[in-house]
Amino acid sequence: MKTLVFIRHGQSLWNSLNLFTGWVDVDLSEQGIEEAKNAGKKIKDAGILFDVAYTSYLKRAIKTCHYVLEESDQLSTPELKSWRLNERHYGALQGLNKAETAKKYGADQVQLWRRSYDTLPPLLDPNSPESSTHDPKYRYLDKRAIPEGENLKVTLERALPFWNDHIAPSLLKDEVVLVAAHGNSLRALAKHIENISDDDIMSLEIPTGQPLVYELNDDLSVSKKYYL
Amino acid sequence: MKTLVFIRHGQSLWNSLNLFTGWVDVDLSEQGIEEAKNAGKKIKDAGILFDVAYTSYLKRAIKTCHYVLEESDQLSTPELKSWRLNERHYGALQGLNKAETAKKYGADQVQLWRRSYDTLPPLLDPNSPESSTHDPKYRYLDKRAIPEGENLKVTLERALPFWNDHIAPSLLKDEVVLVAAHGNSLRALAKHIENISDDDIMSLEIPTGQPLVYELNDDLSVSKKYYL
Repeated sequence: MKTLVFIRHGQSLWNSLNLFTGWVDVDLSEQGIEEAKNAGKKIKDAGILFDVAYTSYLKRAIKTCHYVLEESDQLSTPELKSWRLNERHYGALQGLNKAETAKKYGADQVQLWRRSYDTLPPLLDPNSPESSTHDPKYRYLDKRAIPEGENLKVTLERALPFWNDHIAPSLLKDEVVLVAAHGNSLRALAKHIENISDDDIMSLEIPTGQPLVYELNDDLSVSKKYYL
Repeated sequence: MKTLVFIRHGQSLWNSLNLFTGWVDVDLSEQGIEEAKNAGKKIKDAGILFDVAYTSYLKRAIKTCHYVLEESDQLSTPELKSWRLNERHYGALQGLNKAETAKKYGADQVQLWRRSYDTLPPLLDPNSPESSTHDPKYRYLDKRAIPEGENLKVTLERALPFWNDHIAPSLLKDEVVLVAAHGNSLRALAKHIENISDDDIMSLEIPTGQPLVYELNDDLSVSKKYYL
């Protein structure tokens, strides 16, 4: 049986302010740090020893990864970071307050942006200072690959190459895999792994800070799925 | 000009107790954490952007690496850990108090173990519980490669393949490199880089928490060396 564990980062400083975050590189709050450490203790109690850890380019996921590995006594685990595991890019909504955005555009529109599989948010201008094209952490990425706003469909399309090139090969080699990432990048991968329909996927909520364990068959189909 | 930065981890919990540490995986003290964060601030002020970070399998170096990257806003930097960057293995002296060991064996003998280039410490028995052969972090390492006690000469011999296979190729590709490691693994690499003699190397002290910058020529000879 092959083992894959998802951990969604805990509360960030902007979650607590109710702002759209996306690719903005916001830190964990104190509560978020505690969630990550508790997840690490559960991993330790479950006796799970990772062969590799995958995480995003965003510090709230990277730090969650580090806290989980440290608390479970395996900080020396090989780790690979990729922009492909980043949170869904929220376009021009990034940095806006969710309640104020609902007042301005209407609750229905905001609900559509948040819960439709293939509706794009208003896009950022690539020349605006908010565009990630100016962020040095993406300096070796072709600017044409950097999104200015994504729906879940696009998030899955850019996460899927990472699944096929890294996560799946690790699992097929029987490596035990940790993926420390975000609500929507994990949801996108879960859609692929569990073969969930476009209609059903938006209601899947992976809770923060709770290790989600997939036991997979040789063909990477799901044998068991449970939270620690 | 090629840029290589060494950072030696700051105070660990055992440094403060005056114990021989070696491969024992002791955590940083609060002071050690502060030293690492300050090093990160200096890196940030110097405007150094790393393309890759190399560190050991020991948490005091890994956490130093993470604090340096976080404080300098580059936590997404690719990172590779290796046992070859571990501290010198102190054999059966690991866990002993330095002052008590001097009383028991004589100050001259302890000085020889600490400061001779090629005198081995008393070795651990590979079957003893203290041997690293039982540590899960080395489970994919051939047990015959796991030391039971090292002098600086042996430390250099096992660190050198990492220089040749990873650090030097990165530098030859003009990548800016961080190495977050230990007093003796960094000293061993410095011996190789600076071509220091067996007699002179033991008096080289790399201070903790102070980023050491090497500017290297195309043939990896040293053009400049300074502390931030």
